[in-house]
Amino acid sequence: MGGVFTIAAIPFKSPSFVESSIIKASALGADIVEFRLDYWQGDLPDFEPLVELAKTYGLSVLITVRDPSEGGRKVPWKEEALKIANELGCLCDVEARLYNTLPCKKTILSVHYFDMIKDRDYEEIKELSLKARNLGAYVFKVAAVLRDLNSLLKLRDSILHPRKAFMPMGRGTERLRLLTPLLGSMFIYGSLGDSTAPGQVPLEDAVIASRLAAKYRMPMSDTPQSDR
Amino acid sequence: MGGVFTIAAIPFKSPSFVESSIIKASALGADIVEFRLDYWQGDLPDFEPLVELAKTYGLSVLITVRDPSEGGRKVPWKEEALKIANELGCLCDVEARLYNTLPCKKTILSVHYFDMIKDRDYEEIKELSLKARNLGAYVFKVAAVLRDLNSLLKLRDSILHPRKAFMPMGRGTERLRLLTPLLGSMFIYGSLGDSTAPGQVPLEDAVIASRLAAKYRMPMSDTPQSDR
Repeated sequence: MGGVFTIAAIPFKSPSFVESSIIKASALGADIVEFRLDYWQGDLPDFEPLVELAKTYGLSVLITVRDPSEGGRKVPWKEEALKIANELGCLCDVEARLYNTLPCKKTILSVHYFDMIKDRDYEEIKELSLKARNLGAYVFKVAAVLRDLNSLLKLRDSILHPRKAFMPMGRGTERLRLLTPLLGSMFIYGSLGDSTAPGQVPLEDAVIASRLAAKYRMPMSDTPQSDR
Repeated sequence: MGGVFTIAAIPFKSPSFVESSIIKASALGADIVEFRLDYWQGDLPDFEPLVELAKTYGLSVLITVRDPSEGGRKVPWKEEALKIANELGCLCDVEARLYNTLPCKKTILSVHYFDMIKDRDYEEIKELSLKARNLGAYVFKVAAVLRDLNSLLKLRDSILHPRKAFMPMGRGTERLRLLTPLLGSMFIYGSLGDSTAPGQVPLEDAVIASRLAAKYRMPMSDTPQSDR
């Protein structure tokens, strides 16, 4: 169950860009590379060779096609991309509000709050995380605009799923984000130069934070949900 | 003001042990070496050459002679040791409850709670930290037995001194301790094999945590006291 993973977020600009990003991500110590396919302008790209390349570097692949409501771009081939992702054994990340069946065997159901998080949002997080648990989602993930540690802890404690990932969004929240692996988030995202989300930290710092957390994984009494 | 420092805690077993510990601490990236003189059995040791050695390695020296009430040992030459420490330009660490004048120019006034921290202890922390501020102490430091993050944050927020250091004590609190630099503690202690306090982490991990915190030092809205 435990485990703390660093995800290198790669905007899918071109196959050659992704190729060099995979090599860089591996060198910097990432565990997973995320292909953000909604960055690709054009028909569904053939990403299978890049998935194979990542595997040769010992990296897992996460396929994400973000909708505009999640800070991404609408593409006509989203469902086809997820189907291929599943066949290739990739993780995939889809919006918890939109999906009632899981597109992949290892699906991350996620939810985003781009306005400052509110009390009713925590209630929705509880509901959606229960839904994710019932559907058998691999991880439930929340990214939210928030500014202080108390809001982040409240967010964490609202997630009623045994494998949770959570992160603040927004400039100036980098320090809070670096705390998340030690606070029980299963993932931390890092960027390779071009950030794909506000508040993302450089991959090398994300790697440091998650390795430190992985080394000190003993349960803390304030994270009762972590091994539920 | 800011700044996050890693202190290598060195039990003063013998001059040659301290000498090799200084070299190791420097190699692992410590900023400060702490000589725990109460570990020394015998007359006041001549620690000046070791202070000079530390300086040649770019390290500051902190002299600590802990009383039994702070987890140390009674020695007859404590005040003399502090006087020499001050003359050599060292930092020194003394118990906030016992001292009403500061023995060194850079004095860390500290307080320890070896039983699980209680509500009245937080009140005492406020009072003692105000006293430390009025006396002009360089840093006010609290080490307390506690088990969850909320207690640690309450402890932090009880310190009414612009430069604060705080840490949990006890086995199993290592992960909480590694959070402290990112939460605004000015110091984190690390051990070189032989721990001098329960819950101490290896020096190399303390260095990682404080460097990460130093890199992301932007103020967080939940640490209003940090630049008071």
